Amino acid sequence: MSSSFGSVFKISTWGESHGVGVGVVIDGCPARVPLAVEDIQRELDRRRPGQSDIVTPRSEEDKVEILSGVLDGLTLGTPIALLVRNKDHRSSAYDEMQHTYRPSHADFCYDAKYGIRAWAGGGRASARETIARVAAGAVARAVVKALAPETDVLAWVQQVRHCVCPTKAEEVQRTVVESNIVRTADTASAEQMAQLIREARSAGDSLGGVVACTVRNTPVGLGDPVFDKLEATLAHAMMSIPACKGFEVGSGFAAAGCCGSEHNDEFYMEGERVRTRTNRSGGIQGGISNGEDINMRMAFKPTATLMIEQDTVNDARQEVKLRGKGRHDPCVLPRAVPIVEAMAWLVLCEHLLRQQSVSCMA
Amino acid sequence: MSSSFGSVFKISTWGESHGVGVGVVIDGCPARVPLAVEDIQRELDRRRPGQSDIVTPRSEEDKVEILSGVLDGLTLGTPIALLVRNKDHRSSAYDEMQHTYRPSHADFCYDAKYGIRAWAGGGRASARETIARVAAGAVARAVVKALAPETDVLAWVQQVRHCVCPTKAEEVQRTVVESNIVRTADTASAEQMAQLIREARSAGDSLGGVVACTVRNTPVGLGDPVFDKLEATLAHAMMSIPACKGFEVGSGFAAAGCCGSEHNDEFYMEGERVRTRTNRSGGIQGGISNGEDINMRMAFKPTATLMIEQDTVNDARQEVKLRGKGRHDPCVLPRAVPIVEAMAWLVLCEHLLRQQSVSCMA
Amino acid sequence: MSSSFGSVFKISTWGESHGVGVGVVIDGCPARVPLAVEDIQRELDRRRPGQSDIVTPRSEEDKVEILSGVLDGLTLGTPIALLVRNKDHRSSAYDEMQHTYRPSHADFCYDAKYGIRAWAGGGRASARETIARVAAGAVARAVVKALAPETDVLAWVQQVRHCVCPTKAEEVQRTVVESNIVRTADTASAEQMAQLIREARSAGDSLGGVVACTVRNTPVGLGDPVFDKLEATLAHAMMSIPACKGFEVGSGFAAAGCCGSEHNDEFYMEGERVRTRTNRSGGIQGGISNGEDINMRMAFKPTATLMIEQDTVNDARQEVKLRGKGRHDPCVLPRAVPIVEAMAWLVLCEHLLRQQSVSCMA
Amino acid sequence: MSSSFGSVFKISTWGESHGVGVGVVIDGCPARVPLAVEDIQRELDRRRPGQSDIVTPRSEEDKVEILSGVLDGLTLGTPIALLVRNKDHRSSAYDEMQHTYRPSHADFCYDAKYGIRAWAGGGRASARETIARVAAGAVARAVVKALAPETDVLAWVQQVRHCVCPTKAEEVQRTVVESNIVRTADTASAEQMAQLIREARSAGDSLGGVVACTVRNTPVGLGDPVFDKLEATLAHAMMSIPACKGFEVGSGFAAAGCCGSEHNDEFYMEGERVRTRTNRSGGIQGGISNGEDINMRMAFKPTATLMIEQDTVNDARQEVKLRGKGRHDPCVLPRAVPIVEAMAWLVLCEHLLRQQSVSCMA
Repeated sequence: MSSSFGSVFKISTWGESHGVGVGVVIDGCPARVPLAVEDIQRELDRRRPGQSDIVTPRSEEDKVEILSGVLDGLTLGTPIALLVRNKDHRSSAYDEMQHTYRPSHADFCYDAKYGIRAWAGGGRASARETIARVAAGAVARAVVKALAPETDVLAWVQQVRHCVCPTKAEEVQRTVVESNIVRTADTASAEQMAQLIREARSAGDSLGGVVACTVRNTPVGLGDPVFDKLEATLAHAMMSIPACKGFEVGSGFAAAGCCGSEHNDEFYMEGERVRTRTNRSGGIQGGISNGEDINMRMAFKPTATLMIEQDTVNDARQEVKLRGKGRHDPCVLPRAVPIVEAMAWLVLCEHLLRQQSVSCMA
Repeated sequence: MSSSFGSVFKISTWGESHGVGVGVVIDGCPARVPLAVEDIQRELDRRRPGQSDIVTPRSEEDKVEILSGVLDGLTLGTPIALLVRNKDHRSSAYDEMQHTYRPSHADFCYDAKYGIRAWAGGGRASARETIARVAAGAVARAVVKALAPETDVLAWVQQVRHCVCPTKAEEVQRTVVESNIVRTADTASAEQMAQLIREARSAGDSLGGVVACTVRNTPVGLGDPVFDKLEATLAHAMMSIPACKGFEVGSGFAAAGCCGSEHNDEFYMEGERVRTRTNRSGGIQGGISNGEDINMRMAFKPTATLMIEQDTVNDARQEVKLRGKGRHDPCVLPRAVPIVEAMAWLVLCEHLLRQQSVSCMA
Repeated sequence: MSSSFGSVFKISTWGESHGVGVGVVIDGCPARVPLAVEDIQRELDRRRPGQSDIVTPRSEEDKVEILSGVLDGLTLGTPIALLVRNKDHRSSAYDEMQHTYRPSHADFCYDAKYGIRAWAGGGRASARETIARVAAGAVARAVVKALAPETDVLAWVQQVRHCVCPTKAEEVQRTVVESNIVRTADTASAEQMAQLIREARSAGDSLGGVVACTVRNTPVGLGDPVFDKLEATLAHAMMSIPACKGFEVGSGFAAAGCCGSEHNDEFYMEGERVRTRTNRSGGIQGGISNGEDINMRMAFKPTATLMIEQDTVNDARQEVKLRGKGRHDPCVLPRAVPIVEAMAWLVLCEHLLRQQSVSCMA
Repeated sequence: MSSSFGSVFKISTWGESHGVGVGVVIDGCPARVPLAVEDIQRELDRRRPGQSDIVTPRSEEDKVEILSGVLDGLTLGTPIALLVRNKDHRSSAYDEMQHTYRPSHADFCYDAKYGIRAWAGGGRASARETIARVAAGAVARAVVKALAPETDVLAWVQQVRHCVCPTKAEEVQRTVVESNIVRTADTASAEQMAQLIREARSAGDSLGGVVACTVRNTPVGLGDPVFDKLEATLAHAMMSIPACKGFEVGSGFAAAGCCGSEHNDEFYMEGERVRTRTNRSGGIQGGISNGEDINMRMAFKPTATLMIEQDTVNDARQEVKLRGKGRHDPCVLPRAVPIVEAMAWLVLCEHLLRQQSVSCMA
């Protein structure tokens, strides 16, 4: 239960930060989907540490190996296993973590839940766990692209600390996002945000922010009403990303301040297609996609590891002091972008495959 | 898939607004949990229309019948089936809905997904669907109370339009919440909010708002790391409630503006118990409860049905005008409170039962 | 977990023999499948007691009510809830069962597992539970018939005690099976079997037997390799029927005595279609249907309730004597036929719907 | 869906016979279960080819690597990933399989289902798939042994062709079974069976047989009534093993010929323990274990690969001749023994963990 996601396109991830590696098994991928190892590696490279001076300088190559389920560039319909070996298995930088609970980390809770914990580097709670998400997301993307080629997912850093990128969702361009090290949607914001992150790093501190994500050209009809509404499964997916503290779709929290006459999306016809004039629904009504852009925003807390001394306790129940060591991201946002996209692809793929059986009488 | 929730404490709900009734089957409830029909009816009465002058005056008695799974006030361990019959099966007020898509409702999307739709009263997308959630939530509450009696869930209306109730989560009292028709946490806010709702109703308009929810005395160790983090399953649960547009836990979106030294929760010892001095984590770290209060906020959009003329289209793909009829809530917030609590109980129950097998070697 | 079956076409059944009723919720039925209440009632009538002098004379009308999920004769794609009310709720014939464990019944095990048990009439372990299977099976049949109209499932009583019906699977005719009260495949066997059953009833005894089942015109490609092989899910389905003690497919246990040169099914071409000259595989190879008839045999033990005094124990751990009371089937086989068919339809429907997403790139 | 088993102790297997390797991810293993790599390797060694002159002489070392989920000899509660690398990746012996469908193999059905197939060595349908079962079964065994140490699973070859080992289930000894190359329960049978297998191999032919399995000291109360009866999930597990054609429990098919007075198991008290004088129920009543030995029998067909020319067709729909090449088991039974045991352990572990939450109020 702890590490599986999806019911038709089902993924099971595994691996601790300082173990042999991390990986994922995908059970339920349709047969004959074109899939190359490069499709997966490209996304992992976007997630990898060491891409720029504002992320952790740790050296992790993160080369993915396809262990099963693909033949001559096509999926076989049977499980796809992916493996990324860990590189530098241990570092004395982590020794203190064996007995001391880092504030706002998972250490104490893992001990409380399991009575045991892979303490080195955070174990299963390490950010290395997200490698498996990104790898699986790349396969999900391949499936969606094969079935609904126009569908696209685009995420970007919309806010770092109090600096907000003003670009509207419908105007964000992937080339701009990928051309700056922060992965935000305009160059001016990118410079300010990068500067904020460098300052935080110098201070041994860290910063929070917001990642926004838009899904364009979603097929109409995705999402299962009642519990597995499209926004509910997206919220589940996004809120499962480490450090994510909030999720909103369409008008989101702003809806709370609206009256209905301000908020409703009126329908009109655009040729043969039913459209809405506004998109406060965020592309989803009644839990089902209506074909408009799906717009989401996810809040991320600042990295919990600080190079500043903090009060904490250890597993002997003693109050102690702790100062972080090692190499950490002062701001996870730039590297969270491909993770957010991966989770969106996984949700879209799941619903697209579910829809095959729901609509088989159409 | 469309209407099931939970994997160990699994519920399957069913029913259209103008069909025979609505109900739920619960598979996975432990044996010998004390459960009386009154435990369920009490929660349904809190959700029922017609409780005050600010909610819909529709007359729905919503009497629940336990069809199976309970003997002499104890659960049997086998499935519990609950049934609430519908009362006034049809109304001509809904005739127009047969072919016209109401703006910001599910009508168009159901047609697009299924090629068929129970149009009367919204069918499966009606708010009557939430009866089954509240009924199942009452059973989940009984299970949690039997295993962890101190645990409590308390929701309240924190915002209506721009009126925000200032009471802090840790100071909210159930008696106050239940003593005012808005279900907010102080009397002054209650009057202002009620007034806003009455004005909206007079104008044929509707209002959005925020429901807050706190879980007190949560057992430490609930939540499955990686995908089924406690906050991720809570987000899934809450975002599946009709009209919910946003979810945040702990610091939520405010975390985005913080630096780590402002945000981290330092640990200290309170007697034998590990505590945090602040609670920006919202009671959850690494996806697992740490014993502090779990604080959540959910944004709800204004009711989509307006007594004001709007532009829309019909299923013949013609642009038409529509003005709502019938009796509707101008603001869903007061009645959303027991629904939010039900979803929280369902999530807590699921994780508490999962924890039985995870920790069996402890 | 206790009462759910299927993952895409998922059913949840509920109900005790002497409670309000029994029923099922089906989640995952595709939209727009033609479905009439008569389709379900017809199968329930085949399962009902009191059809002839060789089955229990209990009077159970077993009228099914569709509570949700169907509009104007078409499925809506949302959950279908079915309800059959119980009629004669209690009988003093069962009073002894409150504390005494009937030999070869579930009484002792339910007490051991749950620490509580709905003792009247067997509660959840009563044969009335199979009503929900038959009702759900009728819906599954409607789905399969809509997607693969040629597919047919036919079961019959092949053996009672030592009397074996010699008709070959491929020659069995539904009209013959339904024209005799035993539901066997030829008239001479029917008379002998009926006589055996009458003799057993007179002696207060009961009889076991074999139900055979053939699936004709199965679509090629159904079944998931490895764990959810078609024969494995069929075995699961059949072995879950009360009193079923054995399952075999194709050559079955006879395969154990064969050498490969006797057993292999050689392929040949019949026009454009790949066929096998023999069918020891029973229509399934590698867990996947090959288009040949799927032939299964299920062993049923004799009814455990006897009108003969037996040794047993009670829940005070005392050794006592017990003689059955009430009205029981001396042989469950005739009424097991529609139950076996229902389980086969459920498995076929599940795999047919799974196949929609597996093969979406074809 | 294709390769997952279990819902609480959930395994996902992967790997093709001539790919990189085979493996399994186990999600849901409790924390702090003692587990050493040797526990797993020991079982794999029992399954490995080349153990004696009556099994395939292929050289497969099958060394297992624990990739995650274990620290210092204890499980972490997070996923356990196991990997066995394939050794000799390709052989020209298999080239013919690329286009020709081997009789009674999965080749044709995989092509029909997926439109693509990993033809070399049978791909996913190869017996190498069972490595992952045996590895996962060893982990399941460790969990059961930790929670219910007296429980034991013992399988043996009971029949090869027409040679039947007469030893009663309750008298079978593991030391005897493991001391002969056939893995049968007495020395005389072992010699006869080995001789039969050698003769079949010389003739290029193969043999079927029966594996029996007994579970001793099962905890009372395992198994979920209705669909997941203990015998139903065991049947599912066993019938999913390649080449398995039949399953029976307790009296099995012999029950069909019995009358109730011959078949019922009368209860008596043995000290404080409720026992049955006979065990035709096979240790399971109402789908729930009663504490008596669980006795099962599984029929296996003869290996489909023959060194004898057979008629078949190819993927161009032409009728052709085929004679097997390569090194194959003339009789799978000796190596099926550890696979049968592994599947039994997996089912027991699943139900034992489910029982933790069902009985949490006890």
